[in-house]
Amino acid sequence: MTTPKSENITWHKANLTHDEREQAIAQRGCVVWFTGFSGSGKSTVARMVEQQLLERGKVAYVLDGDNLRMGLNKDLGFAPEDRTENIRRVGTVAQLFADAGVLTLTAFISPYRRDRAEARSHLPEGRFIECHVNTPLEVCEARDPKGLYKRARAGEIGGFTGISAPYEAPETPEIRLETVGRSAEESAAEVVGYLQARGFLEANR
Amino acid sequence: MTTPKSENITWHKANLTHDEREQAIAQRGCVVWFTGFSGSGKSTVARMVEQQLLERGKVAYVLDGDNLRMGLNKDLGFAPEDRTENIRRVGTVAQLFADAGVLTLTAFISPYRRDRAEARSHLPEGRFIECHVNTPLEVCEARDPKGLYKRARAGEIGGFTGISAPYEAPETPEIRLETVGRSAEESAAEVVGYLQARGFLEANR
Repeated sequence: MTTPKSENITWHKANLTHDEREQAIAQRGCVVWFTGFSGSGKSTVARMVEQQLLERGKVAYVLDGDNLRMGLNKDLGFAPEDRTENIRRVGTVAQLFADAGVLTLTAFISPYRRDRAEARSHLPEGRFIECHVNTPLEVCEARDPKGLYKRARAGEIGGFTGISAPYEAPETPEIRLETVGRSAEESAAEVVGYLQARGFLEANR
Repeated sequence: MTTPKSENITWHKANLTHDEREQAIAQRGCVVWFTGFSGSGKSTVARMVEQQLLERGKVAYVLDGDNLRMGLNKDLGFAPEDRTENIRRVGTVAQLFADAGVLTLTAFISPYRRDRAEARSHLPEGRFIECHVNTPLEVCEARDPKGLYKRARAGEIGGFTGISAPYEAPETPEIRLETVGRSAEESAAEVVGYLQARGFLEANR
């Protein structure tokens, strides 16, 4: 939408560059894409990272099943094509958040490389940080916080990642969190350290 | 997702309240929902508001056709049911942005009261600010910045709001911008003043 020529608008003022936007808010938008088995700790770690960033006054936000499945993706089920559409929408929403300058954290199993690659493709180089929460399946199943593995083993849930559906682990993620024997806080600190080291927590120059 | 009991997590630390989140980032999330005819100036005013907020160091973001139609909503066309789904998704994404604490500005014709009411229903009381950009149809058509009215009159575009499809003006919007004889800057200042007066540009207490 443009404005009629008859109005004397100083146009340049209405167009901050992306760099100027990030200067103004003193943070750089990005997406930390957590991936891993159910029960691996994705949401737990993501929420701790969010908390630590907020405590520094940075706008950070977790996108996960809790806030997506009830709203944006409430029309989607768990069939393969719905899972792909779910991840597609998450990717495009994460792109918008990152464009806004938000430190964006997504926590979905996202088992397919193809889907994660598509999410990555929406972001500028370096802004998509794939974070593999590398908790072994046995550990996740032993935890079974929601009782889902038990139901999957009993055949009550089909297409369950790791049990009756594949998980394609990232080959070269930006971050691989080895969670065994470490607290969630330690994992979160590793992610925050990564963001800090790469300048996402301050302006560009 | 919960964490196994065997890990000694201080749970309360991972759960900032919504108030604490907004304290930390010194702004309160909301949605300013601009509605009006094509060519009324919605995007122009929204981008000026965004600019003014960014210059104060506040994280603000415009959701409009430019960034939604290419990504999240690229599977949607312009048929009535697609328009409704378009606005539904915008509403749920705006809800997520506001939940993150972002000053969120949406700029869509959004001609139906029902759709705007649905978007409002996702937000807590007082956080949805309907802003009617009340530029008369004749003025919008005379501007015709994209040549769309001409094409609609020629019958090349069907279901065009104001020409061959209805526009249901808001009855009691939080803000009604009378744009005739005023610059876009003046309209933007009115919106920023509204946000300032209601405490959205600072922490709660």
